[in-house]
Amino acid sequence: MHAYRTHTCGELKLSHAGTTVRLSGWVHRKRDHGQLLFVDLRDNYGITQVVVDSGSPVFAAINAAKLESVITVTGKVVARAAETVNPGLATGEIEVQITEYLLQTDAEPLPFPVNTDADYPEETRLKYRFLDLRREAMHANILLRSRVISSIRRRMIEQGFTEFQTPILTSSSPEGARDFLVPSRLHPGQFYALPQAPQQFKQLLMVAGFDRYFQIAPCFRDEDARADRSPGEFYQLDFEMSFVTQEDVFAAIEPVLGGVFQEFANGRAVTPWPFPRIAYADALMKYGSDKPDLRNPLVITDVADVFRGSDFAVFAGAIEKGHVVRGIRAPQAADKPRSFFDKLNGWAQEQGAKGLGYVTFAEGTAKGPIAKFLDEARLANLKEITGAGDGDSVFFVSDAKGPATKLAGAARMKIGQELGICETGIFKFCWVVDFPMYELNEDTGQIEFSHNPFSMPQGGLEALQTQDPLTINAYQYDIVCNGIELSSGAIRNHRPDIMYKAFEIAGYPASEVEARFGGMLNAFKFGAPPHGGSAPGIDRIVMLLADTPNIREVMAFPLNQQAQDLLMQAPAPVPAARLKELHIQLNLPPVKGGKPG
Amino acid sequence: MHAYRTHTCGELKLSHAGTTVRLSGWVHRKRDHGQLLFVDLRDNYGITQVVVDSGSPVFAAINAAKLESVITVTGKVVARAAETVNPGLATGEIEVQITEYLLQTDAEPLPFPVNTDADYPEETRLKYRFLDLRREAMHANILLRSRVISSIRRRMIEQGFTEFQTPILTSSSPEGARDFLVPSRLHPGQFYALPQAPQQFKQLLMVAGFDRYFQIAPCFRDEDARADRSPGEFYQLDFEMSFVTQEDVFAAIEPVLGGVFQEFANGRAVTPWPFPRIAYADALMKYGSDKPDLRNPLVITDVADVFRGSDFAVFAGAIEKGHVVRGIRAPQAADKPRSFFDKLNGWAQEQGAKGLGYVTFAEGTAKGPIAKFLDEARLANLKEITGAGDGDSVFFVSDAKGPATKLAGAARMKIGQELGICETGIFKFCWVVDFPMYELNEDTGQIEFSHNPFSMPQGGLEALQTQDPLTINAYQYDIVCNGIELSSGAIRNHRPDIMYKAFEIAGYPASEVEARFGGMLNAFKFGAPPHGGSAPGIDRIVMLLADTPNIREVMAFPLNQQAQDLLMQAPAPVPAARLKELHIQLNLPPVKGGKPG
Repeated sequence: MHAYRTHTCGELKLSHAGTTVRLSGWVHRKRDHGQLLFVDLRDNYGITQVVVDSGSPVFAAINAAKLESVITVTGKVVARAAETVNPGLATGEIEVQITEYLLQTDAEPLPFPVNTDADYPEETRLKYRFLDLRREAMHANILLRSRVISSIRRRMIEQGFTEFQTPILTSSSPEGARDFLVPSRLHPGQFYALPQAPQQFKQLLMVAGFDRYFQIAPCFRDEDARADRSPGEFYQLDFEMSFVTQEDVFAAIEPVLGGVFQEFANGRAVTPWPFPRIAYADALMKYGSDKPDLRNPLVITDVADVFRGSDFAVFAGAIEKGHVVRGIRAPQAADKPRSFFDKLNGWAQEQGAKGLGYVTFAEGTAKGPIAKFLDEARLANLKEITGAGDGDSVFFVSDAKGPATKLAGAARMKIGQELGICETGIFKFCWVVDFPMYELNEDTGQIEFSHNPFSMPQGGLEALQTQDPLTINAYQYDIVCNGIELSSGAIRNHRPDIMYKAFEIAGYPASEVEARFGGMLNAFKFGAPPHGGSAPGIDRIVMLLADTPNIREVMAFPLNQQAQDLLMQAPAPVPAARLKELHIQLNLPPVKGGKPG
Repeated sequence: MHAYRTHTCGELKLSHAGTTVRLSGWVHRKRDHGQLLFVDLRDNYGITQVVVDSGSPVFAAINAAKLESVITVTGKVVARAAETVNPGLATGEIEVQITEYLLQTDAEPLPFPVNTDADYPEETRLKYRFLDLRREAMHANILLRSRVISSIRRRMIEQGFTEFQTPILTSSSPEGARDFLVPSRLHPGQFYALPQAPQQFKQLLMVAGFDRYFQIAPCFRDEDARADRSPGEFYQLDFEMSFVTQEDVFAAIEPVLGGVFQEFANGRAVTPWPFPRIAYADALMKYGSDKPDLRNPLVITDVADVFRGSDFAVFAGAIEKGHVVRGIRAPQAADKPRSFFDKLNGWAQEQGAKGLGYVTFAEGTAKGPIAKFLDEARLANLKEITGAGDGDSVFFVSDAKGPATKLAGAARMKIGQELGICETGIFKFCWVVDFPMYELNEDTGQIEFSHNPFSMPQGGLEALQTQDPLTINAYQYDIVCNGIELSSGAIRNHRPDIMYKAFEIAGYPASEVEARFGGMLNAFKFGAPPHGGSAPGIDRIVMLLADTPNIREVMAFPLNQQAQDLLMQAPAPVPAARLKELHIQLNLPPVKGGKPG
């Protein structure tokens, strides 16, 4: 018989009854019924109830085993009596009557219980992560993460992609967030940087003639923590393809993302692909966001025509000076009490707005503080534009275009939540496309890149040479799920001539482009294929599937919000000799009434 | 029709004849036959011959296209005439007659040709890696690497393993090589370290109750370069299992390694598994190495009995003072000219030995400088021990046990090579097992750990308490292929009581064990399962399969031997403000008659 086990703790069924088995695992729970001691024995695969009689020579030893000790038991599998069958447990039809027992390793008293998912302070959980990971929810989350990544890999390979490893010790990125630096021992005064993303390497792989690259890529940003972003490292499904249009990129990745969400949806619905494509301008207009949450059925409309020249002087005057007015239909809100409208008004004031005006249509008339300023024709127009009917309300936002868009977007979500009309149990995907290439910096009057300067402008060189830059869109796109941006992506600008021109429009002379982006530019001069890709965030995908807003719930060993590993004691001081070898010394901030930090 | 291609350059067959297709790729080679211009168009998938007539309106443009430019061509697929079919090319039965042509991106003059694998200086190749990777051998190596890793992943999952990600920003390792350090911005004066291996994390995952972990893990060591070791980063197939014996570990990984070698053997044979297990002591005796190359059929024997008390005073005296004498049978060496023996003797002198004595059996007698000192009985014994027969020679090595083992091992390889009797076209695997737990430091008289202090001693606590430490073996093992160690591994010491005792024998008090390894020790006190694993080197596996001794030939973007990325310019100086933010400053070595390094 094997020294540790003949079966796992998730394996035994009624068909094993009568056989002698050996199991090893952790003491999950003990129940003393006087004559009988029941132990729930747990391993990676499940829980099996093992039982020992008080007359057994091993009773005393098992009775003394502390929770979370590792034990090995040997005994006969027996069917449980009908009334004690546990249908909630894979092994619930049987139990094992222990005849032999061995304590493998003892457990000290626990800092928190392992056999419940009751909440404990995150710092304690992280310090004892090896215990926290034994708890049911974390164990399930980490296995889910593994299975999701494995499924993504399989699907990417099915789509003809090949996984490559790109360097982790590399050079500082020309753009973006703050890098982590690594001092070089062999080159005094010089530093490596950890990659914020393998962006340049994946483009170089395309230039090198590989066609469909992907990588479950570790990325590093020295940024302050957020709930949905780990300080330090995170993973993305980095991919890039050659000889493709934007639609080819979508067609390649939709079955991967859609498929993996379907696979792990666990009863939740998933947008069938092809996913809706929403132009950036439309997203801002209709959803007040470039990350529209399509679970919310509400749509923002432009109701300026309703108020232009009307008696409602606040909006009419605003329109005169170039502001916009947006309307949001709130279906069946007419029945809501006054407090509903007051609450939304108060919410808008918290957002810095003057309030949230509205009109309610009920019993054939229009009510609410604004209704009396609108004649029948204007009310009819309002109904037509917003689709509002009897029983509905329409809320209004007016401001300069930028802030009005933002507030309307927030109001859309708030109203949707208050009405309880947002869909649940569903993953709603869309692509946001046609991002503008440039925008006007209102302060300086300069034309600047709107998003990614390395995207290919729609219309190519000709557009740059002939169009008003502010009318040029880029082949740039975001994939959004439930209002969360999983990734930006783009068809890249792979032509040096177009790149020089694109930067010239944004005020960069060729010399500066060469100084800052010379590496890529040089590579592009030796025959670069058209290429594009994206990099959906792995952690975010797993967070969505695990239904948790905290990234640390889907990582086995995350840093805490202060970027510390409380278990392994990182970061930590290092001996002076190590620093000397690296040609650096400390340059600590001045002490402020205490010890140095 | 798609903007770039209807097919790849590796796809078109005779069955496509008559269809109009579009292809995109790089201009691999051009052949001007006067009336006809042939272009070999290359992409990731293959090469297709495209052809244009000098009368075509696009002839001039194609004629002007420089090698490695990216072009798109459209035209009809036609069958090649029988005499121009190229059976060496997947698309060799057809060609495409160009009717439309578009230059996508031009290529500047190349620093080295892409369409041959002719050797160029590595520094040039690395600086233009994006071109170097287009060359046939590199392109094949990198795709091989990807396929090998993908196959390993699939096989590990088939074996019930789950892939986890462990942190890359972590703490300094208590043992081993030099870490790369990363200064912390948020914690002045403190540093993260990049992991030399995820050893502690994988053991923590076992303590956390996960059962079969693996990871294609990036590992980092700030060591000087070797041909088979990349400065900076490398990858290993890191794995660990709970509730297992050493044989369980072997049984889990043998189908993975054996399977992947079979899959990519390309006609080469692979040792069927279970692989031979060779005890460490036997490996040293029979092969003079703990990394035996079993392609070499020669076996070292202990021939001290032949010389003890003999007239050959050199060996007889050596034996008297405790030295050993090893014999290596060289089959069918009797026919070799004198120069063969002289060459081997000279080789041994280069190794620092006095020479390489030998006896040759031929025509019923024994010859050679030593033969005359041995009587018939001794010669018969020599034949029996070494298996030598008529026509064979036996070479001798005598020295203290350590140096004699090493020289005998080297002589075994040298003789095997000189005789040309080593097998080729085969991957010969073995496990080396039963490594001693301790060894005696001859200088200090102290007992020290022989290899890995964290391995479980065979016999457990009882062995440590009752046996002479120098007789205790550990559950530690190496997997070796063709004389290359792919990995060490071990059943770990998971019991704090055994760990304290094991370190006590090596002279470490409990307080020091706690100070140095407190993290793991603390985790083990909360219920640790028996566990073990290993971590075969991915780069080495790919090097073996790609048949290259240079690790940089199997990495897309390696650092050079001076740990520099010549393409991305890493490492590099960083602005002073960045260092200030990280609370460090430079501490450069003194200038030695020149600019600072």
